[in-house]
Amino acid sequence: MSSNAFGKLFTVTTFGESHGPAIGCVIDGCPPGLAIAAEDFRTDLDRRATGRSRHTSQRHEADDVEILSGTFEGHTTGTPIALLIRNTDSRSKDYSEILQTFRPGHADYTYWQKYGIRDPRGGGRSSARETTMRVAAAVVARKWLAEHFGIRIRGHLAAIGELEPRTFDWAAVEQNPFFWPDASMVAELEEFMTALRKSGDSVGARVNVVAEGVPPGWGEPVYAKLDADLAAAMMSINAVKGVEIGDGFAVVAQHGSGHRDEMTPQGFLSNHAGGILGGISSGQAVTASVAFKPTSSILIPGRSVNLAGEPMEVRTRGRHDPCVGIRATPIVEAMMALVLMDHALRHRAQCGDVGEVAPRIPGAVE
Amino acid sequence: MSSNAFGKLFTVTTFGESHGPAIGCVIDGCPPGLAIAAEDFRTDLDRRATGRSRHTSQRHEADDVEILSGTFEGHTTGTPIALLIRNTDSRSKDYSEILQTFRPGHADYTYWQKYGIRDPRGGGRSSARETTMRVAAAVVARKWLAEHFGIRIRGHLAAIGELEPRTFDWAAVEQNPFFWPDASMVAELEEFMTALRKSGDSVGARVNVVAEGVPPGWGEPVYAKLDADLAAAMMSINAVKGVEIGDGFAVVAQHGSGHRDEMTPQGFLSNHAGGILGGISSGQAVTASVAFKPTSSILIPGRSVNLAGEPMEVRTRGRHDPCVGIRATPIVEAMMALVLMDHALRHRAQCGDVGEVAPRIPGAVE
Amino acid sequence: MSSNAFGKLFTVTTFGESHGPAIGCVIDGCPPGLAIAAEDFRTDLDRRATGRSRHTSQRHEADDVEILSGTFEGHTTGTPIALLIRNTDSRSKDYSEILQTFRPGHADYTYWQKYGIRDPRGGGRSSARETTMRVAAAVVARKWLAEHFGIRIRGHLAAIGELEPRTFDWAAVEQNPFFWPDASMVAELEEFMTALRKSGDSVGARVNVVAEGVPPGWGEPVYAKLDADLAAAMMSINAVKGVEIGDGFAVVAQHGSGHRDEMTPQGFLSNHAGGILGGISSGQAVTASVAFKPTSSILIPGRSVNLAGEPMEVRTRGRHDPCVGIRATPIVEAMMALVLMDHALRHRAQCGDVGEVAPRIPGAVE
Amino acid sequence: MSSNAFGKLFTVTTFGESHGPAIGCVIDGCPPGLAIAAEDFRTDLDRRATGRSRHTSQRHEADDVEILSGTFEGHTTGTPIALLIRNTDSRSKDYSEILQTFRPGHADYTYWQKYGIRDPRGGGRSSARETTMRVAAAVVARKWLAEHFGIRIRGHLAAIGELEPRTFDWAAVEQNPFFWPDASMVAELEEFMTALRKSGDSVGARVNVVAEGVPPGWGEPVYAKLDADLAAAMMSINAVKGVEIGDGFAVVAQHGSGHRDEMTPQGFLSNHAGGILGGISSGQAVTASVAFKPTSSILIPGRSVNLAGEPMEVRTRGRHDPCVGIRATPIVEAMMALVLMDHALRHRAQCGDVGEVAPRIPGAVE
Repeated sequence: MSSNAFGKLFTVTTFGESHGPAIGCVIDGCPPGLAIAAEDFRTDLDRRATGRSRHTSQRHEADDVEILSGTFEGHTTGTPIALLIRNTDSRSKDYSEILQTFRPGHADYTYWQKYGIRDPRGGGRSSARETTMRVAAAVVARKWLAEHFGIRIRGHLAAIGELEPRTFDWAAVEQNPFFWPDASMVAELEEFMTALRKSGDSVGARVNVVAEGVPPGWGEPVYAKLDADLAAAMMSINAVKGVEIGDGFAVVAQHGSGHRDEMTPQGFLSNHAGGILGGISSGQAVTASVAFKPTSSILIPGRSVNLAGEPMEVRTRGRHDPCVGIRATPIVEAMMALVLMDHALRHRAQCGDVGEVAPRIPGAVE
Repeated sequence: MSSNAFGKLFTVTTFGESHGPAIGCVIDGCPPGLAIAAEDFRTDLDRRATGRSRHTSQRHEADDVEILSGTFEGHTTGTPIALLIRNTDSRSKDYSEILQTFRPGHADYTYWQKYGIRDPRGGGRSSARETTMRVAAAVVARKWLAEHFGIRIRGHLAAIGELEPRTFDWAAVEQNPFFWPDASMVAELEEFMTALRKSGDSVGARVNVVAEGVPPGWGEPVYAKLDADLAAAMMSINAVKGVEIGDGFAVVAQHGSGHRDEMTPQGFLSNHAGGILGGISSGQAVTASVAFKPTSSILIPGRSVNLAGEPMEVRTRGRHDPCVGIRATPIVEAMMALVLMDHALRHRAQCGDVGEVAPRIPGAVE
Repeated sequence: MSSNAFGKLFTVTTFGESHGPAIGCVIDGCPPGLAIAAEDFRTDLDRRATGRSRHTSQRHEADDVEILSGTFEGHTTGTPIALLIRNTDSRSKDYSEILQTFRPGHADYTYWQKYGIRDPRGGGRSSARETTMRVAAAVVARKWLAEHFGIRIRGHLAAIGELEPRTFDWAAVEQNPFFWPDASMVAELEEFMTALRKSGDSVGARVNVVAEGVPPGWGEPVYAKLDADLAAAMMSINAVKGVEIGDGFAVVAQHGSGHRDEMTPQGFLSNHAGGILGGISSGQAVTASVAFKPTSSILIPGRSVNLAGEPMEVRTRGRHDPCVGIRATPIVEAMMALVLMDHALRHRAQCGDVGEVAPRIPGAVE
Repeated sequence: MSSNAFGKLFTVTTFGESHGPAIGCVIDGCPPGLAIAAEDFRTDLDRRATGRSRHTSQRHEADDVEILSGTFEGHTTGTPIALLIRNTDSRSKDYSEILQTFRPGHADYTYWQKYGIRDPRGGGRSSARETTMRVAAAVVARKWLAEHFGIRIRGHLAAIGELEPRTFDWAAVEQNPFFWPDASMVAELEEFMTALRKSGDSVGARVNVVAEGVPPGWGEPVYAKLDADLAAAMMSINAVKGVEIGDGFAVVAQHGSGHRDEMTPQGFLSNHAGGILGGISSGQAVTASVAFKPTSSILIPGRSVNLAGEPMEVRTRGRHDPCVGIRATPIVEAMMALVLMDHALRHRAQCGDVGEVAPRIPGAVE
């Protein structure tokens, strides 16, 4: 299977470099009959768009999606859906200097060692620009999951550096450029980011995601567990260094008597497991948390080597995104959607006639 | 691809239930000419063995591996290598009672919802018994990686509950039943575990793993990144709830100026990235950390429901393993080995003639 | 994906050499709840058994299947089903001589060139012994297909050398050791085979297979067309050199007006297409025809080279099977079953809620 | 894996409908450093082009390939190569009538039964237009195979209806619009085709293909045999009903003493096997033969049913291609190239360090 493809049955293959002619994807395995139009992609692509806030990279792309195939009269036909976005704001002159340089913390050095060649324009294939197509493909998945199962997937920023929300309100998340669930802290965040930008440095972030309405039974033991596929999905996003399901690393200090989610006919009493037991969804909300590293493209000079192996100093000129995690929320949601969509089809393939065999226990009220 | 198979080119398919006739695996894609004998499996299977210490489950299995295919005169032939271990200590009577019960924190409920049927004997397929075959298959991978690249993979326990090592010494790890790197704390751990067992409760743990000698260039962007595959590999292990690469969740609070691993001709100056940049190995040590939840099989009664949806109380009788993380170190090492082995072959497939194209920068001295 | 595995969702991984300790397979993705017992394998394995007739290889194997996993109380659980058959009649001394020789028409030379090593005992992995596990795995598939869709898969020998049936009767097929549909010719075949055996030579054969009851809609364009997967399945059988769907090579001389299967509300008027249009089943009987080469293990000496590249003469001693096609009918049926089973699940995955959207046209009466 | 993708390591995913905005493909896994430019696609796309001769469909497409990704300064970088061709000559009005009709011998009925929806414009996804991207992707494969192994892949038409070449000359093949190896028959073919076109009917064809220079050792037993993958590749082409390797169905009547290709140090004495033994290349020329059915789009009226299941008469209006096999030669060559390219990488992955372990025997002089 292509390493630029994600999913076993709902398969998304992406292509394109940051400053090449275009980026795009091919979605294969989509069920037929789903209504999809170019306008459907607008909201999620805007949420992810790099030009959304002055605290993210200053690249401006229209990001207009063209549907090249796979639909007829506005509905999916079951054949591959190809989506294309032209790169319009390339400005590749900004990156001419880095051709001879391995920027520390970037993929420059590793791509070179692997392939013996690399596209230096804006990070090439290793640019976060690729994630645009994840978000686009997930639009299709989210729509199908919502229509067929009422599944809702929502994410939010859970930390920027050492700042964490003091209160939590889903309604606040979409009303500030940080996807931050505590409206009272937005001014503080603005100030923090402005200072950070001025310092020329960057900072890490944490994004949480919740999928509600996932029925019990999705996920395939033992190597395609729902949480294993989620872990791969999240870790494949640029800059991610950690993934947690449910309580995540907090379980290290927990006791079994506290961790295990007890069940009653009225519902689970807690959700430490994050909605997954033995790799299979329990019907509780599926929860994950993802750590984003501070971007390495900063204005502060750093030591590096050039193609000839000589020591040199690197300092990012072009754009500078002081916290890549800020715009990562839609991407994390997208990967959750792609994993769930794939497993919805996988479950139906093997167990499509199992039906509801036992009383379903409601999820814990959070 | 089978969901009970791991790896794209070095593919390990496992089968078997905890208390069925046998467990086993089929390794496909192994390069020919590797010397392998039944004795090679002894050490690693003993390290993982459940009867190793009085602090782990009291099951005693000989775990003698039979090589059913794939070798001739002691060398791999390139054909599938099948390994078989008979289950000799089943004692399935211990588990007869749970047939009607969904144990909280276990896969009982989710398997039932998915399949409408489950093997209740000892956890069936969801038992950690399955991980035996991961360790067995990894013996082959580790041997090949060591012979061809000098790669060494080592793990250790990094936390039990709130206890963490105060000093670090690799030499200590294999000299105590906890894979603990601080010899001075072993008595303390013994005491802690004894108290825990008496309390009838369980506790979580953290396992760290390091692979040294991995050449730069392994890993395939963008969905088969080396870290994405590692995340899936680790999360597929029973009881795992979190995976970190390099600094993991600590990156959330870091700044880019501190995180990025600067390079000099003499070597990297740090290894916050855990040896992976852009999904491709950098030549530095590949590091990961894994969180294991406290087992849910404890002596303390808990609320649950039965097959009929009626409320009931569950209390584990049979064996009780107060910290599954203790014996997880060899499993974590095994998954690291399987991922690296698969990517060694994948890299050779696409980039086998790229060769050494640029100066290689040594890894940071830890 | 393992190259010793077949099927995307109903995945069968086989292992084992002709004269190793055992052969076996792992079936992954089987729907839960199917009743399966060791006795279910008896009939089909006997039909394929090498010792069935004096006209096939004189090897006698009990071929008792042991179910190692994947069932509980006689029903599939959705977890991997491992099947094992011990090799009891190895007599590897017969093959000691060929270690230094590349037999013409065999895989000896190519395995050696590929792997640099080969298991010379009875053909090792390239032996037709491997096909036993295809037949065993297909028992599970055939049972499920029959129970869920009423699908019936039948094959017969359609030619031995230049002999072809003069009449056709399905009832005759299972009543002679040749799977021959013309009872009046059995004595003639016996005579032919006896003369052939005496001559020390071998002959080719053709096997036809028909699957009735396949619903319309199975098969996935464009590279996983039902006929493309059938072609791969059949060509993967030892000694196969040609595969036809429907009219096969006869279409070269046909005209469109004669070939296209016209449709009426009462049914298709013919079935030249073999039940597949655009890679998708039409609801007509799915038909295929397969060519088996004459085995190269004959008593007549032939020119070859040895490991050192020196010229030599080869003459098969041990067993001699003058027409491998005779026992191939159950294997061809098995591969048809495995392909259909896989596509049944694949179709359900993507199109499980499409339902019956248009009038179904009955198949042509043959 | 996507069913619109071909190849395990050199993976080609195609998309697009006959009369949608565009067709395209994504090539993943291509080794880095190969020189590729838009001009490279011209020759092979022209050879396949539908407007090449008055005996093929009268559609005129510029078929200009745009390279959207995967190259930098004219060389492949190891990242996905996306190719795009806009559909410029759609004229979808020609097809408006067939929306309510299931044309006999076409995929109309089966797509409808599978998906409950279909794109009626020019056959939609089931159109032979899709094969354009196979030819385009194969340009990359052929170039790599030629540069690295000197492999040459050539095909020719071997029969149109009952007409077969009386002499054979490779030089003639590219000098007539039929890819016909007997220059003396071209006038006869022209006449035959003209008469056929006037009759409103169509006819089948046979295409042969030969790959020279394939080294021994390619192909993976047992389900990814080189011939099994070739069979799937060829059968996945529109209108193909049969595939042969080497002598194909002629083996049915052969004896082992004649079929087995004897070996001497000076070379094989014949090539009945078509260069593949046990699923692995022998170093001889790899040969295959493919049967194309007569197209069902003919001017002669035929019986069919409409969406409501009512009887009706169908008569193709728009374009009419009396022998689809004529332009199939480049497509058959392309599929040979894609299979070989994939196996070149697969072989290197598993056996990259086996080297030349035994004397290589030259192929038979044809």
